Amino acid sequence: MENNLVAAVRAGERPAVGPADALEALRAAVGDDLQRVNALIVGRMESQVPLIPQLAGHLVAAGGKRLRPMLTLASARLCGYRGDAHIGLACAVEFIHTATLLHDDVVDESDLRRGLPTANAVWSNQASVLVGDFLFSRAFQLMVESGSLEVLRILADAAATIAEGEVGQLITANEPETAEAAYLEIIRGKTAALFAAATRVGAVIADRPPHEAEALDAYGLNLGIAFQLVDDVLDYSAHQSVLGKTIGDDFREGKITLPVILAFGRGSDEERAFWRRTLERQEQHEGDLAHAIHLMERHGALGETIDRARAHTDAACLALESLPNRPERRILADVAAFCVDRAY
Amino acid sequence: MENNLVAAVRAGERPAVGPADALEALRAAVGDDLQRVNALIVGRMESQVPLIPQLAGHLVAAGGKRLRPMLTLASARLCGYRGDAHIGLACAVEFIHTATLLHDDVVDESDLRRGLPTANAVWSNQASVLVGDFLFSRAFQLMVESGSLEVLRILADAAATIAEGEVGQLITANEPETAEAAYLEIIRGKTAALFAAATRVGAVIADRPPHEAEALDAYGLNLGIAFQLVDDVLDYSAHQSVLGKTIGDDFREGKITLPVILAFGRGSDEERAFWRRTLERQEQHEGDLAHAIHLMERHGALGETIDRARAHTDAACLALESLPNRPERRILADVAAFCVDRAY
Repeated sequence: MENNLVAAVRAGERPAVGPADALEALRAAVGDDLQRVNALIVGRMESQVPLIPQLAGHLVAAGGKRLRPMLTLASARLCGYRGDAHIGLACAVEFIHTATLLHDDVVDESDLRRGLPTANAVWSNQASVLVGDFLFSRAFQLMVESGSLEVLRILADAAATIAEGEVGQLITANEPETAEAAYLEIIRGKTAALFAAATRVGAVIADRPPHEAEALDAYGLNLGIAFQLVDDVLDYSAHQSVLGKTIGDDFREGKITLPVILAFGRGSDEERAFWRRTLERQEQHEGDLAHAIHLMERHGALGETIDRARAHTDAACLALESLPNRPERRILADVAAFCVDRAY
Repeated sequence: MENNLVAAVRAGERPAVGPADALEALRAAVGDDLQRVNALIVGRMESQVPLIPQLAGHLVAAGGKRLRPMLTLASARLCGYRGDAHIGLACAVEFIHTATLLHDDVVDESDLRRGLPTANAVWSNQASVLVGDFLFSRAFQLMVESGSLEVLRILADAAATIAEGEVGQLITANEPETAEAAYLEIIRGKTAALFAAATRVGAVIADRPPHEAEALDAYGLNLGIAFQLVDDVLDYSAHQSVLGKTIGDDFREGKITLPVILAFGRGSDEERAFWRRTLERQEQHEGDLAHAIHLMERHGALGETIDRARAHTDAACLALESLPNRPERRILADVAAFCVDRAY
């Protein structure tokens, strides 16, 4: 069955573990490399301008799962890479991710702001933009150190695609009539492009043949799409205690995600009027979030979004099959499964 | 006298022309290359997301002097470069500059906003951040196409230095006690680093020896510092009709520039209270701008800032002397002189 990772992962042919253990296994597999990445992250946030490490450190050093840099580390190992360039690239990937989060905060915050901006909110808006720019530049400095123009090309392309996805999201915000295809294009940009680049560069620095780089790209891309789809579902269904995530953020911001698109498309005129009021005009009252979840459940929108996510994790596992049969391969397949499992 | 550009330029040994002609001569010297850069700018702003070329085009295609890309083109020619890479790099330099302007707008706008943000203001804030990110990424894609890791290193370093300078400016905003040295460090970052990189890469792509790259770096750095110092003066003294510039923007935003630092440092207790009220607490009334200009004149703050600028353009011309004696060398020296001349 090892030849068919999709079936193996689906059939649960792995230690009967909770989803969190897939990340634990990934963390164990990358071993000391992750410590080196963390040390580099702290070192490269340094600046003579003290606000920069303060603000960036708040977001980047405090944690997060480090999923993207771990994917770079594991991909490089899967490709038999023996050098040191993967450490700097994993750090670059995390910096690009963090810069995107900082710039997202500006976007979302502005969206929500209803009253006078507080001095504090203004300060963060300004600082978030500029510290994001700093981290983005640091990422490119790290990429230059890799000495590979191909790596630079991949990550520069990803950065442009991310920005296009983010602008696309801005345009479709509050538009429940957004087409499914347009939505998938957006998350392919804003989320999946960085996953794809993070895994692909592992093959490039290891000097592996193009079909392996393509395979890791396909793995990362599908993983990223699935990851975002499940995130969209969790925003309407997460158990707060388990995930530390609040639900309803997307709803309050009028963000259009696949569950909304599906529920809107299948809704009655009355239901569509509800979506238009709450998301397009953003007139929201008590009980609206609960009603939104109710409508999604009525039309099977959350379950169908998870099904789509699973189709993408299957594609991710399938792509892995053309890569060497090293332990990291199975770990990456389990990470894909985890992506969907965390929805339960 | 051609061996001493500083003396030649200072003595006015050039056609007796107005300052604008130095830019005209630069434009004539780079010739068709500038048209190629403009075409590339329009081409590389394209995206499947229509808002991107719309917003970017508003800023980038509509014009501006194209001073920075022309400096790259002229530097490459001065170094005898015969290839095509300077076109893409000039475009990259303009994109980095435009991205910085877009992100500056967010910063300044937030600062000024006193009432409820209009939908339009919110939209621009979000779009400005993301389209800026897009242009920044496009710049890196263009740099990758140059095929030179050294060029990538120079421009990635410049981008990080720019961000540090911008954050430094954010920290010192509204702080009239900012030290001169701290202020010079800020403008070295936010303005001069890109000028230095724009000129330095000309020598790098032409494969010239390191001392010529250093010389062009020193030229650009000093030119950029002078350019910013004169800009700071113009904000308190420009003839609106001539320059199309409004005066008092920096004052209204509470921005701390060298004229303010000098006037504050030499001011009486009463005068310092004026600066603290208007810039630190930003309580401004009718007549405050005129009084600010009056105080600057009393202490010679504007004239002294121009003297400092002239010292930097002298240093810029001096640096040019170790470069080949081609026509572009004198044109670049005249551009430095123009930088200060435009203050009159």
